[in-house]
Amino acid sequence: MTNRQIIVAELPQGQLAESHFALHATDMPVPEHGEVLLRTILMSIDAANRSWMQGATYRDAVKAGDVMATYSICEVMASNSEHIAVGDIVAAESVWADYVTRPARKVQKLPKVEILSHLISVYGIAGKTAFHGLISVGKPMAGETVVVSAAAGSVGGYVGQIAKALGCHVVGIAGGAEKCKWVVDKLGFDTCVDYREKGLFKTLRAACPNGIDVYFDNVGGPILETTLALMNEKGRIACCGAISQYDSSTPTGPRNLPGALVVKRLRMEGFIVMDFANEDAKAIRALQTWVNSGQINVTEDIVDGLENAPKALIGLLAGDNKGKRMVRVGPDPKGE
Amino acid sequence: MTNRQIIVAELPQGQLAESHFALHATDMPVPEHGEVLLRTILMSIDAANRSWMQGATYRDAVKAGDVMATYSICEVMASNSEHIAVGDIVAAESVWADYVTRPARKVQKLPKVEILSHLISVYGIAGKTAFHGLISVGKPMAGETVVVSAAAGSVGGYVGQIAKALGCHVVGIAGGAEKCKWVVDKLGFDTCVDYREKGLFKTLRAACPNGIDVYFDNVGGPILETTLALMNEKGRIACCGAISQYDSSTPTGPRNLPGALVVKRLRMEGFIVMDFANEDAKAIRALQTWVNSGQINVTEDIVDGLENAPKALIGLLAGDNKGKRMVRVGPDPKGE
Repeated sequence: MTNRQIIVAELPQGQLAESHFALHATDMPVPEHGEVLLRTILMSIDAANRSWMQGATYRDAVKAGDVMATYSICEVMASNSEHIAVGDIVAAESVWADYVTRPARKVQKLPKVEILSHLISVYGIAGKTAFHGLISVGKPMAGETVVVSAAAGSVGGYVGQIAKALGCHVVGIAGGAEKCKWVVDKLGFDTCVDYREKGLFKTLRAACPNGIDVYFDNVGGPILETTLALMNEKGRIACCGAISQYDSSTPTGPRNLPGALVVKRLRMEGFIVMDFANEDAKAIRALQTWVNSGQINVTEDIVDGLENAPKALIGLLAGDNKGKRMVRVGPDPKGE
Repeated sequence: MTNRQIIVAELPQGQLAESHFALHATDMPVPEHGEVLLRTILMSIDAANRSWMQGATYRDAVKAGDVMATYSICEVMASNSEHIAVGDIVAAESVWADYVTRPARKVQKLPKVEILSHLISVYGIAGKTAFHGLISVGKPMAGETVVVSAAAGSVGGYVGQIAKALGCHVVGIAGGAEKCKWVVDKLGFDTCVDYREKGLFKTLRAACPNGIDVYFDNVGGPILETTLALMNEKGRIACCGAISQYDSSTPTGPRNLPGALVVKRLRMEGFIVMDFANEDAKAIRALQTWVNSGQINVTEDIVDGLENAPKALIGLLAGDNKGKRMVRVGPDPKGE
């Protein structure tokens, strides 16, 4: 019985390509003392994966020759630990492979849920980030206008759906007409503006006839500058990320900062999901309520097969996903 | 009996000069029905005065031929109103003149205080702006590090002194060695950094060995960018103004926005003093407490004589004031 792994054959200089990866067959790993043997079921595919190849961040850099790193959901196949049993479903900082061994104390047992992939999407980082950022930082109220950038992305889609559930007027910003249509049709946003079209300021202004009260920012840069110009007095900007700036060697700060904050008395606040870990139970309960009521449509973009992980990541970086992207490596234990 | 007025003879194109003003002698104004005759005691000199010459803002523009506008403290000399009595001390949106008439309903009776000028400085806009911005937006705590730009200015000086009274480590930023020395010697800041010297980042970092928890920003631009790089996680930035950007035709946003907010989970919030009018009584009581205890040194920069108002404003714009600048036009009623 063999195992498959995907190695980073060469570190990318610029755009990531399939040639930077190589699929290897290896022996089945054997768990040592205190370790567990894991079978990968689902791997999360995130823009952050690419940034790990650029150097150390909140984790060690991924180097040439390493098996590519990922966050996975796995089934325990063998255990040398009292705390983890064979058959447990766990989350792990793992790698692109069919099987891995990990120290038992580094894996996290997951609750039983109907659909395992939801633990990566709506009840995972994506849904929790959307909930905490919107609720605790943006603080929207029914009747207010909420704008979300990267609206077709894994976080943005949940932000807009939560805001709709709260009674807000919700406007997305996404790239391309097809994505914008999907954001409105599948996620129920009131409207979605294509930032690739000319005249974003005018289009966005028309989409927000009462101005913007809350802006959930995933992108920074010129889109942030444009929304700042349309914010209402006492508006809130939840800063979740700045995708537009990550690959730039000449970052550009919005030219209307801090002026717009003073004139309109805006609050702009950054957050990361881990800051709100003590409120995760509240988040999960609310998200479950909206999923059950049909107010949140769980959108997942699942690519089948370990061998397709490079393609899935490259596509994500080009923005071709809608909803949370992940790779299914093996079946759910119940045979899904 | 004649009156003196200072007229805007010509609107400035670029730098303001004395030649843009002219002193005129006119007849004594006579109050009409519902009006009061006011004798000017003190006139507030503010950077905003200059901006009024550039076009309409929150008030009408000042045009060529107008008597120059100002905020004044005056004694009522004659009254055609039941609500205002001769001898009352009032605040008024007024002009650069010895005497003016104003509708009685547009003037505001002032409380009795020991020193009239304090109603423009520590108990006026300057002190209240410092209090509300620091306390309600910055939310500093004893032991934290507070940084203030324009530290020798009318607002900045009170910000630092309030922060010291609260037990914070207080670092000012000001222009020039002499001003920095004054900020430390007269206002009791722990240290003050000269932004005109090279290497602001290193100097400021050395002055803040525990990082920055609260930054009270009066300037925006590159100084804001530098402080952002030194903020601690969960730090707060109270945005009071952006002097560095007002005269610029090519404003530059801090390049580390919004990235720094996300990574360090910072809150950046604009405010204006009027938003906190319902808390002014609390502010005045606190400020009086610190003035009485000697923890706030009331710094005023009083220029004598109506005829010197142009020079006082031109000097303020060049940054030659320390503390709240005003012009004394006439004596206090009690003969000061």
